[in-house]
Amino acid sequence: MSASGDRIANETDLIQTYLAPLTRGAPGAFELRDDAALIAPEPETDLVFTSDPIIAGVHFFPTDNPADIAWKALAVNASDLAAKGAKPIAYMLNLALPGPPMREWISNFANGLHAAQDRFGCHLIGGDTDMTPGPLSIGVTIIGAVPTGKFVRRQGAASGDHVFVTGTIGDSALGLRVHADPSAFPHLTSVERAFLEDRYLRPTPRLALGEALRTHASAALDISDGLMKDLTRLAGGLGLRLHFDLIPLSKAAASARAHDPALAETILGGGDDYELLVAVAPAAIADFRNAAQAAGIAVSDLGALDANISLQVVDADGTPMAIERFGYDHFSRSAR
Amino acid sequence: MSASGDRIANETDLIQTYLAPLTRGAPGAFELRDDAALIAPEPETDLVFTSDPIIAGVHFFPTDNPADIAWKALAVNASDLAAKGAKPIAYMLNLALPGPPMREWISNFANGLHAAQDRFGCHLIGGDTDMTPGPLSIGVTIIGAVPTGKFVRRQGAASGDHVFVTGTIGDSALGLRVHADPSAFPHLTSVERAFLEDRYLRPTPRLALGEALRTHASAALDISDGLMKDLTRLAGGLGLRLHFDLIPLSKAAASARAHDPALAETILGGGDDYELLVAVAPAAIADFRNAAQAAGIAVSDLGALDANISLQVVDADGTPMAIERFGYDHFSRSAR
Repeated sequence: MSASGDRIANETDLIQTYLAPLTRGAPGAFELRDDAALIAPEPETDLVFTSDPIIAGVHFFPTDNPADIAWKALAVNASDLAAKGAKPIAYMLNLALPGPPMREWISNFANGLHAAQDRFGCHLIGGDTDMTPGPLSIGVTIIGAVPTGKFVRRQGAASGDHVFVTGTIGDSALGLRVHADPSAFPHLTSVERAFLEDRYLRPTPRLALGEALRTHASAALDISDGLMKDLTRLAGGLGLRLHFDLIPLSKAAASARAHDPALAETILGGGDDYELLVAVAPAAIADFRNAAQAAGIAVSDLGALDANISLQVVDADGTPMAIERFGYDHFSRSAR
Repeated sequence: MSASGDRIANETDLIQTYLAPLTRGAPGAFELRDDAALIAPEPETDLVFTSDPIIAGVHFFPTDNPADIAWKALAVNASDLAAKGAKPIAYMLNLALPGPPMREWISNFANGLHAAQDRFGCHLIGGDTDMTPGPLSIGVTIIGAVPTGKFVRRQGAASGDHVFVTGTIGDSALGLRVHADPSAFPHLTSVERAFLEDRYLRPTPRLALGEALRTHASAALDISDGLMKDLTRLAGGLGLRLHFDLIPLSKAAASARAHDPALAETILGGGDDYELLVAVAPAAIADFRNAAQAAGIAVSDLGALDANISLQVVDADGTPMAIERFGYDHFSRSAR
């Protein structure tokens, strides 16, 4: 094989060889040979749409494993559907490439999409490929379904509702440090460091919680911009006295924080957790806990929303913790 | 007002001040305050999706009027829906900005979207805003509706079908030259030059032809990559002997070509026409013509598809024309 043979020669080759198999023969995808895609909605369902592109140098490193990049591109969008109680159906993919890609790169990228879509239960239906003078950008618009009227809003939490969080918080922000600098956290075991890095590279949308959310949640969102920033959004003007020790931490994150107390800020403000924050009315808490357990999703109670207090974090002694950085604004986010 | 006050300070300001009004209060857009958008599909309809981003330096000039950029971003997507016989409902907008924009810029951009969505009959429901180290990129994913089973395929043309084209061809490719160089085509009147430039900047999706397509077309697509390239796609292996003189030209384009015969190549291969190519079976031609006339859309017959010939262009004498450039491949397209 010649060296030039390793690079994709044209758009049709890229689409038909690497992307068309991701449609799994879905009739509305037309083998990616039409100008548009089709979905015939099931009766009694609403369709849910969300779109979060990821850009090299902003959301991932250009040198990252293309399978990891692909996983994350789909996972961050599936996570938004998970928070709405919706089930993924299909997605559009908009690739902006800085140049014709190498076959090995696009093959690994397609493998990552394949693994992610199999896990999340959806398939490719359309999109677009372009050359760009800028960095690699992967735009996914995902389409999900929810029974009519069962969409879970971000707004809707009431004073008295308890806030639950899935999984563990802070792993991804710590994992980013490991990913950027393999010598970070030398006191952790290599297994712990790999765990954190994997949480950064391959987030798991909490889709299994869908029915519990649709049935019991008064509001929900996914944590993409940091626990405190997204908690502020869920609270919608209500307050909460959050005991830091109630925040669920993995063993690796707890160990890292025990070694460096200043990491509390990274845990509270770091992004990319892709866990869910869920408001649940007191009367529904027991049922919600049972439903989450049945779904195999760990949930932790962070306390009750309260219209009469502000949002604050306190340590084990009840002393307010000074938190400098409550998540980021997309306008001020620096390239990684 | 201070100079710094002219620049958008944060993402929430941009979204709530300039973009949220574009939702027109649609309930599924949640005022752009949720993580996802919702569409409750009408009974007996299929939903149609298409997504074509436009990138500064590739599809438009960074210095272009932001209202024109916005119009084009929505129009190129609405044009794909038009070719499928679908009616626009809503769209997602993914803005990748090289820096916080000036208020005047984003205000004009929103005005352009407003004008376009009013014309095309849709509204904003969601999306995302990011900073990018690359050029400005505007990603639109548009959602349309078509009566169940009435989606018009790109593939489906049969030997004997006549190929119709809407409007006039080549204006946009010539208009790009005027836009890039105001001294181009000095023999044209200023009105003619402005007409061509407007055709490049503000294409008109042929949405009015929807019912005629759904009822009478055997296949259709929109011309975005050049008449000959898209005709090749519609023909799907069939041939057509295309008399150049049958290609509908505006007065301005005809005058430009009369002055410079080599412009035939630009007319045949230049992109961005956003007219429709429609295959119609012989028995349906009269009804298709009547339906197009009733819709106020000019259509021209380019001749019959024929399984026994190749695709070629001939001049008035029947002499084959040598055409170097049959439209472009996205992989080889140079930045404008």
